[in-house]
Amino acid sequence: MVDRLYSIGEVSKLMNISIKALRHYDKIDLFKPTYIDPNTNYRYYDDSQLYLLDLIKSFKYIGIPLKEMKKVQELKADDLLVFLTEQEKFVKQKIDNLLQIEQTIASAKKGLQRIKEYPALEEVFFSDEEETQIIQTKADGINPTNILTASFQKLKRMTASTEGFRYNDYGAIFAYRPYTDIEEVSYKYLYTPVLTKKDTLELSQDTEIATIPQGKYLCIAFNSLTEQDYFTNLKRLLDYAEAHQLTVISDIFESLVNLHYSSNREKGVLLEMRMRVAE
Amino acid sequence: MVDRLYSIGEVSKLMNISIKALRHYDKIDLFKPTYIDPNTNYRYYDDSQLYLLDLIKSFKYIGIPLKEMKKVQELKADDLLVFLTEQEKFVKQKIDNLLQIEQTIASAKKGLQRIKEYPALEEVFFSDEEETQIIQTKADGINPTNILTASFQKLKRMTASTEGFRYNDYGAIFAYRPYTDIEEVSYKYLYTPVLTKKDTLELSQDTEIATIPQGKYLCIAFNSLTEQDYFTNLKRLLDYAEAHQLTVISDIFESLVNLHYSSNREKGVLLEMRMRVAE
Repeated sequence: MVDRLYSIGEVSKLMNISIKALRHYDKIDLFKPTYIDPNTNYRYYDDSQLYLLDLIKSFKYIGIPLKEMKKVQELKADDLLVFLTEQEKFVKQKIDNLLQIEQTIASAKKGLQRIKEYPALEEVFFSDEEETQIIQTKADGINPTNILTASFQKLKRMTASTEGFRYNDYGAIFAYRPYTDIEEVSYKYLYTPVLTKKDTLELSQDTEIATIPQGKYLCIAFNSLTEQDYFTNLKRLLDYAEAHQLTVISDIFESLVNLHYSSNREKGVLLEMRMRVAE
Repeated sequence: MVDRLYSIGEVSKLMNISIKALRHYDKIDLFKPTYIDPNTNYRYYDDSQLYLLDLIKSFKYIGIPLKEMKKVQELKADDLLVFLTEQEKFVKQKIDNLLQIEQTIASAKKGLQRIKEYPALEEVFFSDEEETQIIQTKADGINPTNILTASFQKLKRMTASTEGFRYNDYGAIFAYRPYTDIEEVSYKYLYTPVLTKKDTLELSQDTEIATIPQGKYLCIAFNSLTEQDYFTNLKRLLDYAEAHQLTVISDIFESLVNLHYSSNREKGVLLEMRMRVAE
């Protein structure tokens, strides 16, 4: 109910806004001083106008460009409510996207961590695996001798979060059987892990959600993509299970991991096969 | 284990990346074709190089600029893990900020909604209020005749989320008493509502958390800032309570709402006083 004048320095301190910003607000007619001393050119502000800076600061905080703020200033309560509801939706969407990014980064980290802790290559080992949700599609004649990177791209393109942090997520499933030649191996499914809930909500016709169960797995990993190495290592896995009289209770899950993404270095891959065994 | 070549159009379709982007990646040496036909200048890509686009797409998704990606491509697993952990922290921080923005927008909307549903001005009415957490500071000689916008700015500056969506959050508390003159009114506290949890974590020395309790309140609101209107309406509130033999069980909470933020229009305010009554 009283009023008083503040210098630009006082307003800056009171409102925690830089003098430079206040000068700029004056220049673009967003927040103008009540009085300018004609001799010194100093700006003076009214106490009762300070509340205007609250809105400017608030909208700056939620990311409204200064240009738009002049329009927002003029809004009456009803329209401001509509405007805020739009902003709220926009913020919720951004949060949603970031939560997905967070999930996908976590999954990528988990994959890298796994590589770091890998046991010796070309040797059979046991691993306790958590349950993994996957999106799978029928392999339709694809097998280890004709599979392409592109084969997986088609699958990935079908999933909603293609645009997510989806790499190193190449997988194929084939039956557990006493193979005697690589030509006998035929994939049943190609798969890619579910990264976010969104993946499962927007499935295309040819894909379905499946689960790689939690349990004890017999595994082998190797650093090669030749057909010979492929079969040698598959044979090691099968022979180990037979020699140790293990009961295999799943298909064989194969996954391909790219060890680095440098186009200047030799391609480094890790191919892993695993199958669940009775405990 | 086989390989094949794709045209730029095929890669674009397979990987869901525009031809324009692929050409740009070639130009900046981020992702280059294996082979360029010397007669037609057409670009051809190897199947086995497609996985490189996974990383580029993934990092694009989490907001890494193209310029940085070349560096990221060269990282080995260990360094990539460090890099991803940094990115994860960054994303978490962004989510945290947005959640606070969401909360403050919701609170601003609630305030506007309240104004919309306001009963007649200068008339006493009852209102069921939810509990409100506030940050308060001793008023130190401030009263209705000498209060300034700046008085509140000092309080707001003390709270952590000064930079949040904090407007229309001016409040003062004074004792319930049979006042006969405005000069007798002296504020005990100035307050501002708690918007986010962060507010309560970083309190400065002179401030404390308090609660305006949930309950039935006797209220009056008016559209003026003159001392005469102030006291007339305060008197209406007090007289109503006396006439209806209401038991007042709280201080009087006063709050000032700015009805719009246009610097071109007359200032519009709503001053509200409320006090809790026994039910």
